[in-house]
Amino acid sequence: MLTLLRIEFPFSGPFGLTLLQEMRGLASSIADEPGLIWKIWTENADENMAGGIYLFRDQVSASRYTEMHCARLAEFGLTGIDAKQFQVNEGLTALTRGPLE
Amino acid sequence: MLTLLRIEFPFSGPFGLTLLQEMRGLASSIADEPGLIWKIWTENADENMAGGIYLFRDQVSASRYTEMHCARLAEFGLTGIDAKQFQVNEGLTALTRGPLE
Repeated sequence: MLTLLRIEFPFSGPFGLTLLQEMRGLASSIADEPGLIWKIWTENADENMAGGIYLFRDQVSASRYTEMHCARLAEFGLTGIDAKQFQVNEGLTALTRGPLE
Repeated sequence: MLTLLRIEFPFSGPFGLTLLQEMRGLASSIADEPGLIWKIWTENADENMAGGIYLFRDQVSASRYTEMHCARLAEFGLTGIDAKQFQVNEGLTALTRGPLE
């Protein structure tokens, strides 16, 4: 079953193009994670927050990734990591053009 | 600038196909909201949570929708509504196949 994962954590930067340069390698690695359909990278410089919205093919892949990635973020020195998983209501999502592929 | 909105709130159901039947009209209305690119409907019956992930073309549209929709949810009797807006790191998102259209 499709599983949406959202992760948020306090983050003081860098953001934008600087973060792109620093995280390009990590992003390529994340793209190859088992079961990952896509990830959107989120950031809010005004509120010092960052995170990601992920869609996984199944809950097992999402849970395995959540554990691995949260441990990696903690190794980066990040704290206050908030991760939540959801199922997707596919019928309602179809009515609002939500991308599930 | 693209703006991602995520909303979450405690929700005791209905979920799945029953929610689809009840919210079909609302979903069609949301699909026509100014500036909305897409919405993914999220739900978690185990944790009694629901919400949505939205992508808007700009921050003004996202903020206008947030105010309107949170007031509507409150009219439905929902409480504990948590809404957060983020910018999207488009370069990193492209590397992980994130859908921005």
